[in-house]
Amino acid sequence: MPLSPEQEQEIEAQRAEVHETRRVVSPELEKILYQALPVLDHGFVRVIDYMGDDAAIVQAARVSYGKGTRTLRSDAGLINYLLRHRHTTPFEMCEIKYHVKLPIFVARQWIRHRTANVNEYSARYSILDNEFYMPAAEHLAAQSTSNRQGRAGLLTGPEADRVYELLKRDAEQAYADYAEMLNEDEDGNAIDPDRDGLARELARMNLSLNFYTQWYWKVDLHNLMHFLSLRADAHAQYEIRAYAEVMLETLERWVPQTYEAFTKYELGGVSLSSQGLAVVKRLIAGESVTQEESGLSNREWRELMETLERED
Amino acid sequence: MPLSPEQEQEIEAQRAEVHETRRVVSPELEKILYQALPVLDHGFVRVIDYMGDDAAIVQAARVSYGKGTRTLRSDAGLINYLLRHRHTTPFEMCEIKYHVKLPIFVARQWIRHRTANVNEYSARYSILDNEFYMPAAEHLAAQSTSNRQGRAGLLTGPEADRVYELLKRDAEQAYADYAEMLNEDEDGNAIDPDRDGLARELARMNLSLNFYTQWYWKVDLHNLMHFLSLRADAHAQYEIRAYAEVMLETLERWVPQTYEAFTKYELGGVSLSSQGLAVVKRLIAGESVTQEESGLSNREWRELMETLERED
Amino acid sequence: MPLSPEQEQEIEAQRAEVHETRRVVSPELEKILYQALPVLDHGFVRVIDYMGDDAAIVQAARVSYGKGTRTLRSDAGLINYLLRHRHTTPFEMCEIKYHVKLPIFVARQWIRHRTANVNEYSARYSILDNEFYMPAAEHLAAQSTSNRQGRAGLLTGPEADRVYELLKRDAEQAYADYAEMLNEDEDGNAIDPDRDGLARELARMNLSLNFYTQWYWKVDLHNLMHFLSLRADAHAQYEIRAYAEVMLETLERWVPQTYEAFTKYELGGVSLSSQGLAVVKRLIAGESVTQEESGLSNREWRELMETLERED
Amino acid sequence: MPLSPEQEQEIEAQRAEVHETRRVVSPELEKILYQALPVLDHGFVRVIDYMGDDAAIVQAARVSYGKGTRTLRSDAGLINYLLRHRHTTPFEMCEIKYHVKLPIFVARQWIRHRTANVNEYSARYSILDNEFYMPAAEHLAAQSTSNRQGRAGLLTGPEADRVYELLKRDAEQAYADYAEMLNEDEDGNAIDPDRDGLARELARMNLSLNFYTQWYWKVDLHNLMHFLSLRADAHAQYEIRAYAEVMLETLERWVPQTYEAFTKYELGGVSLSSQGLAVVKRLIAGESVTQEESGLSNREWRELMETLERED
Repeated sequence: MPLSPEQEQEIEAQRAEVHETRRVVSPELEKILYQALPVLDHGFVRVIDYMGDDAAIVQAARVSYGKGTRTLRSDAGLINYLLRHRHTTPFEMCEIKYHVKLPIFVARQWIRHRTANVNEYSARYSILDNEFYMPAAEHLAAQSTSNRQGRAGLLTGPEADRVYELLKRDAEQAYADYAEMLNEDEDGNAIDPDRDGLARELARMNLSLNFYTQWYWKVDLHNLMHFLSLRADAHAQYEIRAYAEVMLETLERWVPQTYEAFTKYELGGVSLSSQGLAVVKRLIAGESVTQEESGLSNREWRELMETLERED
Repeated sequence: MPLSPEQEQEIEAQRAEVHETRRVVSPELEKILYQALPVLDHGFVRVIDYMGDDAAIVQAARVSYGKGTRTLRSDAGLINYLLRHRHTTPFEMCEIKYHVKLPIFVARQWIRHRTANVNEYSARYSILDNEFYMPAAEHLAAQSTSNRQGRAGLLTGPEADRVYELLKRDAEQAYADYAEMLNEDEDGNAIDPDRDGLARELARMNLSLNFYTQWYWKVDLHNLMHFLSLRADAHAQYEIRAYAEVMLETLERWVPQTYEAFTKYELGGVSLSSQGLAVVKRLIAGESVTQEESGLSNREWRELMETLERED
Repeated sequence: MPLSPEQEQEIEAQRAEVHETRRVVSPELEKILYQALPVLDHGFVRVIDYMGDDAAIVQAARVSYGKGTRTLRSDAGLINYLLRHRHTTPFEMCEIKYHVKLPIFVARQWIRHRTANVNEYSARYSILDNEFYMPAAEHLAAQSTSNRQGRAGLLTGPEADRVYELLKRDAEQAYADYAEMLNEDEDGNAIDPDRDGLARELARMNLSLNFYTQWYWKVDLHNLMHFLSLRADAHAQYEIRAYAEVMLETLERWVPQTYEAFTKYELGGVSLSSQGLAVVKRLIAGESVTQEESGLSNREWRELMETLERED
Repeated sequence: MPLSPEQEQEIEAQRAEVHETRRVVSPELEKILYQALPVLDHGFVRVIDYMGDDAAIVQAARVSYGKGTRTLRSDAGLINYLLRHRHTTPFEMCEIKYHVKLPIFVARQWIRHRTANVNEYSARYSILDNEFYMPAAEHLAAQSTSNRQGRAGLLTGPEADRVYELLKRDAEQAYADYAEMLNEDEDGNAIDPDRDGLARELARMNLSLNFYTQWYWKVDLHNLMHFLSLRADAHAQYEIRAYAEVMLETLERWVPQTYEAFTKYELGGVSLSSQGLAVVKRLIAGESVTQEESGLSNREWRELMETLERED
């Protein structure tokens, strides 16, 4: 359970306040506003605020004086067209703000997406909570031998037990020593009055990368979709994909027409190289093609056959 | 009058729709939402949407679960502190979206601020209106002889008359010929059925830089303040400053505490170089200082004396 | 001829200076460094500086201490892999700087690519040259009636003559009146001593969008390829495509392996939506598919059939 | 000693290769190109490549055909003017690329500067070295009690001994367990053939934030100066300041005129708020001013008095 009763209360208090606005509203997203959607063992994603909806994309694309929408169908058609032809600027006219709690090693992947605004909890200034990530049994993956960046099957039995033992022991030790070096109780008073305590900005370096941090993260819709297309992908590390999948649900609530187009053109779409396209044309013409004559490398050939669900 | 009755109606229709939201609301900004605030002879600024308020800055700075605010006074103090010490990320957590109508030469200055989202009316796709900027008599400035980038006094009498005559004649001619080359009536039908009409994307190049364009422009609060600190400055060209000044009023409505801090530290603040600071210290100590011994160039010395309102 | 003898001389003087460096060097790009490659009737593209080569991409991808390259073949394979899988960061480790002379309406499209550095010639500060773009006969396109953003066939005969007459007359008039309002000779002295002259920052607004401006434009290799994939595309306006095509040649000189990969995966590649992929699979399986049952819109179906070079 | 003999050799091999180029060259920077400048106990900064020099700033500001420089003095004057008046675009025309080895907690602060290109060593893909940061005795700072984000005096005696003991023990344990979970020898073979080994992307999370990572980091001159003005500041954490100080030396070698202007206007300069300026004017006029009547908060007043080196 990631939230303390006090935090739950703060969230509920904010949810209870309802205001009037002339701005456009996304009703399905309003329903879950501020709620902590759980991810991994201690993490969450909360939608804090948003600007715009599907109609706002259409409005910006048409540089309208009013709402700019015509019929539901023509609006959806325009959104499809814009996404298909990489006219990205109207999607930048919508914005969303999340509060995310996540392990530091996930935060380090995430922050590489630079076109976003970030405010992270500062361990220079404050003391981190004693919460660290432990992979569930179904995610305790072995190293792949074929793909240096990938996972193979699961670790089980004594090897799994040993991994849990090490991860747990080291994280607990790291936190206990962090606390000892800080020498501060909850009110900021010295535990041992004869010691000064190490500066927070130094003590934090004893914590390991599975400890949780949190941040406010704000992004426009175009860049959110770019983030999700990379991080909800099967090649992404499971731990960040878990966040991307929860965020996909918030996307669907927020801008359902855009979500549908995104599913069609990005998540479910594929790219073919010039040579890959040539192979496809020959296959459609009923020719048989081999890797050797295709001009594709072994790896590219394998990727193409997987895309086409062929066994050659 | 920049708006047609139909545009006025669209705006009023959108203003009339009120929704419920759990998001934070900026009451003073809501009052003018969607309204066209006039700028120059045919331009305007309209606030289309916004995300966040003063409290949202505090909330992000504290990475809060709830509203994150404490007392009005401590919140204002935190906002002052953040702005003074260039902790800019919490200000990026607020966002605003404008619809702006502006002369093309102003748009060309404006677009140089890259950290913003823009959707411009497309003259490849649509036909521009017959509206061009004519400076009011009190802004018809002569070229400065001392500052190559500046204005001197006003043009008056026959020289002013002649300038108006030329500007008006050329713009009218340019638009008439644009229309002739397009050969399209309002419904997109050929005026002269024997001609094809020049492609819109080519015909537009006959228009001059004082014709009006329009765009949706969306920016976060930190980058908005950066824009305003440069464009509301006395060194900015009058025509873009006119927009900045109207946007300052929207800033004051939106985030009044931030506006006050911005006025104190940015708009009304000054920077001193290391040598400028040395001069100030000596002046405070009652010493007399001359430009020669100050280490400042003539120009820097003059700028410093103006800052200190001294006559030396 | 875009260059004055004096400008030619300046360029040759800079080309004549050769220095020693420990940095990596791109020999084919060095050959044309600083030279003005002509584009349109008065424009050009000049490569002013660059950082990195193909090997620098490999070096960054491997975070190497030395050159990081292994064999030519494995380096090319890595570059292919990186581009295919959208690992864009190593391509950002190369940078190029251009000096470009271009019509203002082209500059306005170009500047929408925000992830680049720009220094434009300032018409607030200096006086623009009397040079404007006139489309060659083979580019004097009529408006498309099917695609509001497109061109159809060429204008010819009296309609073409009339367009040239109008474009030329208006541009010449605009410049003559610009000069009259400025009232400055080449040395900045008043032509008519009884007049002050209109401020440059105002007078420039009388010029039309086909006048030439110039800028320094600097961009990393990833963002350059993004720019080129959009602007060398058949849907781009011819006038900006003309620049993109010349820049493609500089890309080939600079980073030939990357250029080849870019040609395969970006310029010659295609994207299929989830539904488009389903159609392709069925066609390969020998099934016949109609638009109605494909789930694709008319327009998407037509685009797919063009991609596959089928007539259905 | 941060480098292995093999790494030293790779660096020397690259330093030994000298090429001819028509590009501008920065002679003082060439001297140290590729060399590892030591920072902290195991870190370094290496300059890998650069584009431009002081003259290139002037050239861009003048949008020149040739070198664009006039006299040394007038060039320096222009650079001063540009920096003083926040004309930042010409400084963006220079670029530099570093290879940096740094503790992960420093990397996490550094990456917040988004306008830069980064390629980090991947612990998903490769195995991290067994190197972690231990603060030198003169940087083992106690927590400040007055400033939650600051350091007070040094820890000494038994408390310091204990901190070193904990930091060392935990880091060594974390690495030993990381290695055990990976179950890989240097050639990637299983140490214990009966175990699969935990995926690298998971095992890395057991390492603490003082372990070293490395990256290639590329930035333009304007954004480098912004980074340095924040990170070479006395309020920055010592560990990142140590990097900024070494980078300041590379700045001085690269663009000496810009470095001098940067020292005057940024590093040695100060900002005054509107109220702070009012106080300065009154002090110069010989008036006595108290905090109460100044309109400044206690903290602002203290900061101003420190700036002016006054004791009030």
